[in-house]
Amino acid sequence: MGEFELIRHYFAAASCAQAGEGVALGIGDDCALLELPAGEQLAISTDTLVSGVHFPPSPDPYLLGQRALGVSISDLAAMGATPIGFTLALTLPCAHPDWLQAFARGLDQMAQRCMIRLIGGDTTRGPLSLTLTVFGRVPTGMALTRKGAQVGDLLCVGGDLGDAAGALPLVLGQQQAEPAVADALLARYWSPMPQLELGQALRGKASAALDISDGLLADCGHIAAASGVALIIEQAQVPLSAALLAFAGELAARQCGLSGGDDYRLAFTLPAHYLPELQQAGLPVQVIGRVAVGQGVTLLNVHGQPVQQPHSGYQHFGSARD
Amino acid sequence: MGEFELIRHYFAAASCAQAGEGVALGIGDDCALLELPAGEQLAISTDTLVSGVHFPPSPDPYLLGQRALGVSISDLAAMGATPIGFTLALTLPCAHPDWLQAFARGLDQMAQRCMIRLIGGDTTRGPLSLTLTVFGRVPTGMALTRKGAQVGDLLCVGGDLGDAAGALPLVLGQQQAEPAVADALLARYWSPMPQLELGQALRGKASAALDISDGLLADCGHIAAASGVALIIEQAQVPLSAALLAFAGELAARQCGLSGGDDYRLAFTLPAHYLPELQQAGLPVQVIGRVAVGQGVTLLNVHGQPVQQPHSGYQHFGSARD
Repeated sequence: MGEFELIRHYFAAASCAQAGEGVALGIGDDCALLELPAGEQLAISTDTLVSGVHFPPSPDPYLLGQRALGVSISDLAAMGATPIGFTLALTLPCAHPDWLQAFARGLDQMAQRCMIRLIGGDTTRGPLSLTLTVFGRVPTGMALTRKGAQVGDLLCVGGDLGDAAGALPLVLGQQQAEPAVADALLARYWSPMPQLELGQALRGKASAALDISDGLLADCGHIAAASGVALIIEQAQVPLSAALLAFAGELAARQCGLSGGDDYRLAFTLPAHYLPELQQAGLPVQVIGRVAVGQGVTLLNVHGQPVQQPHSGYQHFGSARD
Repeated sequence: MGEFELIRHYFAAASCAQAGEGVALGIGDDCALLELPAGEQLAISTDTLVSGVHFPPSPDPYLLGQRALGVSISDLAAMGATPIGFTLALTLPCAHPDWLQAFARGLDQMAQRCMIRLIGGDTTRGPLSLTLTVFGRVPTGMALTRKGAQVGDLLCVGGDLGDAAGALPLVLGQQQAEPAVADALLARYWSPMPQLELGQALRGKASAALDISDGLLADCGHIAAASGVALIIEQAQVPLSAALLAFAGELAARQCGLSGGDDYRLAFTLPAHYLPELQQAGLPVQVIGRVAVGQGVTLLNVHGQPVQQPHSGYQHFGSARD
């Protein structure tokens, strides 16, 4: 089966989604073609997931499909963009029909939820890895970036943190938990839901934003560096789920919330006067700190005293901090 | 060194190229942002190159950088698009500074030649592979696709074929050749120059086009299938280089020209009245056949009789023909 046939056969649902306004030409030619309405910019992000690095070896293909696309779309949410389409470069040791079918079903499920369409792809034989490139649109000049946090802004996150990191012993089969707890944590690892609605609502309001993938402290460090400010986080305000607290205990849960990766929640800085409006709209906005003069990220305990953090996130290649 | 630092450090030249009009935000945030002039569409293509599959294990990193980007941009040429930018997802077993520096230098050399800018990336630890996604712009409705070849059109290619396939024994170190021959063939393998000028000149003229990556016969099959026509190729008209003929002999050279992969020359169908104009402009246009009623690709020998072809190109995954 040729490359296009393989994609057409297994990924038909994702590539024919009714979503994907702006796709002038989809799969099947040398390039896909996108159109942008006047006054909009195209947001683009590329992510690679490698077996044994970003997910356990021999993962459930259905869950892998969901996770790979969710993780990638999260970058669009972080910019306040509306999804249009994505390309999938899939490298596989062999093309097993059952595997491909389940993977495509997971991918399609996330594509439908996020209203995004598969517009191109490449299939290659090799060690299992995936590279997804996602495309979205955002009104010109309105994209949320990491640069722009202002002294006095609130520091907020889009919900409970640490669940995905806390789920790792379950993902790896090293520990077990009662079904309700296990299901909640595993869902946050395998099916991260990009906060698209929140990101779009923050356009014109948040002064800086990103999605938390390397851990709260590390990613807040990125906002602080790009904006030339300090971020102050009150440890007690970092939201943790009941499932994570039940599974890991308070100390480990807190560490997951601060330094665990793979949250794919938004972190953002916000002028305080926008807070009531967002909360009244039912959006998941949790204030965890503020923007101050200075640099870097400072974590305060319940007594308002700085806490030392030995590790603050996950890094590929090397040890120096971003 | 963090992901952005790594990219900024080694890929500074490629990411700061003066080229890349339309890049509103480059490397360093969750997404890059592109702008499109009114009346233009965005062309997008994704390619993965895996060590040991698409290039020999332990390749010269400088040459790999050139080749990976050249191969990817060739898809933009095939659509008649003008390059804007590209993303690079680089998976490496380890981040060796010398390797990265040489790879980035090769990548940058091709980026400068093609006026394209690195706008985003991802670095991951794992078995060596690269996924590049390239972006170009093309006036709305003017992109060259595989669909549209008309009965009576000429079938043309953009120059000598088979050199890259013929170079494989040299690439793999299995054979040697005199320097002039070896240099010519190796350059066609390691530094494929996308036919951007030709592709852009074909807009509004060629009725169908693609770049030859799987071999002439296989790729002409794609045009025939997409357009619902037959393509007739006169074997004696398929252009072969002096270097390939000297190295491989006529029989093997012809087989490389017909079925070898990795040419990255354009193949296109053209109403005959456009031919003089293109040739007078000095563009590399070689007529090798014509479009006829029917389906599939037929190869004719010098006596005008059909030639049986046991193999007609390279396919990933499985054996059925496209």
